[in-house]
Amino acid sequence: MKNEKNEINIGLLGYGVVGSGVATILHNHQDDLRHKLGVPVSIKKVLVKNLDKKRNGVIPKEMFTTSLEEVLNDPEIDLIIEVTGGSSEAIRRALEAGKGVVTANKDVMAESGPELLKLADENKCDLLYEASVGGGIPLIRTLEDGLASDRITALTGIVNGTTNFILTKMKHENKTYEDALAEATELGFAEADPSADVDGIDAARKMVILASLSFSTEVHLDDVFVRGMKEIADGDLQLAEQFGYTIKMTGSAKKDEEGIEVAVEPVFVPNSHPLATVNNEFNAVYVYSDSVGETMFYGPGAGSLPTATSVTGDVVAACRNILLGVNGKRMHAPQFERKVKSDDQKHARYIHRITVRDEVGVLTELTSIYSHHKASLATVVQDSDLHEEGADLIFITHKISRQQHLDILADLKDTPAVIDISSHYRVEGE
Amino acid sequence: MKNEKNEINIGLLGYGVVGSGVATILHNHQDDLRHKLGVPVSIKKVLVKNLDKKRNGVIPKEMFTTSLEEVLNDPEIDLIIEVTGGSSEAIRRALEAGKGVVTANKDVMAESGPELLKLADENKCDLLYEASVGGGIPLIRTLEDGLASDRITALTGIVNGTTNFILTKMKHENKTYEDALAEATELGFAEADPSADVDGIDAARKMVILASLSFSTEVHLDDVFVRGMKEIADGDLQLAEQFGYTIKMTGSAKKDEEGIEVAVEPVFVPNSHPLATVNNEFNAVYVYSDSVGETMFYGPGAGSLPTATSVTGDVVAACRNILLGVNGKRMHAPQFERKVKSDDQKHARYIHRITVRDEVGVLTELTSIYSHHKASLATVVQDSDLHEEGADLIFITHKISRQQHLDILADLKDTPAVIDISSHYRVEGE
Repeated sequence: MKNEKNEINIGLLGYGVVGSGVATILHNHQDDLRHKLGVPVSIKKVLVKNLDKKRNGVIPKEMFTTSLEEVLNDPEIDLIIEVTGGSSEAIRRALEAGKGVVTANKDVMAESGPELLKLADENKCDLLYEASVGGGIPLIRTLEDGLASDRITALTGIVNGTTNFILTKMKHENKTYEDALAEATELGFAEADPSADVDGIDAARKMVILASLSFSTEVHLDDVFVRGMKEIADGDLQLAEQFGYTIKMTGSAKKDEEGIEVAVEPVFVPNSHPLATVNNEFNAVYVYSDSVGETMFYGPGAGSLPTATSVTGDVVAACRNILLGVNGKRMHAPQFERKVKSDDQKHARYIHRITVRDEVGVLTELTSIYSHHKASLATVVQDSDLHEEGADLIFITHKISRQQHLDILADLKDTPAVIDISSHYRVEGE
Repeated sequence: MKNEKNEINIGLLGYGVVGSGVATILHNHQDDLRHKLGVPVSIKKVLVKNLDKKRNGVIPKEMFTTSLEEVLNDPEIDLIIEVTGGSSEAIRRALEAGKGVVTANKDVMAESGPELLKLADENKCDLLYEASVGGGIPLIRTLEDGLASDRITALTGIVNGTTNFILTKMKHENKTYEDALAEATELGFAEADPSADVDGIDAARKMVILASLSFSTEVHLDDVFVRGMKEIADGDLQLAEQFGYTIKMTGSAKKDEEGIEVAVEPVFVPNSHPLATVNNEFNAVYVYSDSVGETMFYGPGAGSLPTATSVTGDVVAACRNILLGVNGKRMHAPQFERKVKSDDQKHARYIHRITVRDEVGVLTELTSIYSHHKASLATVVQDSDLHEEGADLIFITHKISRQQHLDILADLKDTPAVIDISSHYRVEGE
């Protein structure tokens, strides 16, 4: 059933940097859009908080309104662009009013994505959210397009620009965490309160969105195992380098017959892996799929222009679907039941850095803990530098379960010769 | 003007690994496609050379034909998939018959792309060619989508898997060129006659396709400056490593007010650049654009499944356009006049490796050549190892024009103290 529309009208909620950017792009490219879609696309109303604020830009004054009702009740408006960063309320009501929605709202999509997408399906509307993950990288659309003829088995992403910026500065410029964070804040890459970034919450939200989509299953924020940047101990970055790795804050998601596993944590990435050279504020997502194999999508994870460009891409897609009459038919609703793996079912290589007393027989005592838990070791290194408190031992395991890893750490902690478990990491991307 | 079709029929030309792969994907995902497009999509006829050949797969026997006429004259067929790897003849006739075309044919697109795209426009058809560059990477579509609201200023790509595989093995496993090539041939990454790959012709064809699209201008194969892998001298990979670079065969394309420049050659890429870790047979294209900034798309550059997946993606897009009635409205025809930069107008940093007689005053003599040509030097290193024929001097310039670079090389060659110009490279990605 194709739609007989001969124009598409848009209601824009929010006119900050992203909103005004979208308006400008739609204005500047109206001829291209008309060519692409066959009908004109234009913004009809713009919701703002304050009508009196002085605004430059392409929107005539009479289009601004402070009434959400006015926008949602306008029968000529087909599509809502939500860039207020607020709650899910406006999105929900727009969908209920039968209007398609394009949003950049990561928090709402992570919290209520499945529910909102179901609502979109029920109301035969599209809900597109490209800009919610990976800023300017055309990621969601590429994953969705690919899913039409392929199956994604895993993805690993650097999806938080702040932490990646900090880690890059620490590695390449030998900055301290504090100095690197200060620089990130100064450049606008970090918020005044950076905890959502450095504790991994922001990345976890994005991984919820990516994993739900990629595996067509519901994923809750609670399903994501999260370790923040503060787990990185002094000297760990150098240690990684010494073994040919780079420490990155990654989000990783896998699915197999047993279920899904999603984690956000600092990991060791081999230097030969493409994710190891994703530096500064850049984001990248590395995708493993059945047919195409391995692909990676890299780009700016934030910024008003990149984000506005992604929103505009969604607008084009949404308009196309409205005109084709296939809006709301994208099978948003999860096809598979939510099944989260237990720690027994997650497998990886681990790196343990243990500070021990410099005594005879310590190494034998510790390696026996690994054998007791049936964990075989790939590498054992005693760091040549004795420090005040003792010696550093580095253990790199072959593949073990996360449960084995946790059991070993618990036993190590209970060993009198062990002064401290300085740090431990999963190895990613091997 | 939307189209009133309630089904889309496809004529498939060629049933080799890619063709049969496409047929299988379309068959296995027919429900998804129907959901996405609102109408069923199916293959109606398949052109093969030999009807008697035994074939497994999803296509019933009576659909095969040896007559191109029969496929092209079937009024019910809307779309042609060309995966024969033959001449442009079939594509041309399909477009003249008013049928959309999806092709994986890189040679034809590089040779006759602009002409065929014009023909497609004239006949109100689409001509899509995602699989012609970067195998399974959704590259062309992403560039085209992006171009609706952004402007590409440059791109650098590793677009030939064979040479990248060889260079990776040479760097990481210390293999000789010959051994690495033999391994590539054995694994099916290199043809029996690898000259199109190692001489850079294959990459040049792909760069013609990417540059024409990205800059919306006609680019001829002759416009591409090409240097093959044989320009890499013994010891160059180690030399690059010593200075923090990796040698990669890249295609690069830039556009500014003065015109375009397109080159395929071995270059020095800084190790911190994402392209430096694109290894083995993988391809990647790094894109610089006005709004989004820097993005990179990475994945398998060849292979039957990845290629078939890309072709299927094009089929979905072509069907969508047919149903929307916007096929042939993608403004294929170049918008800008072809204007190729002269060597005076191309700027980069260069690395010169010169073997000189071990005599007093040589360094002064050589540096004076650089100053004479107003080229300032960033680094000058005399390699500590004296070899039989003399000493190695390494010069790394600041940005100079390609003309300066050539003039300096000519003067160096004429200097009696210079035994040989061992090698020279452009620095890419800085």
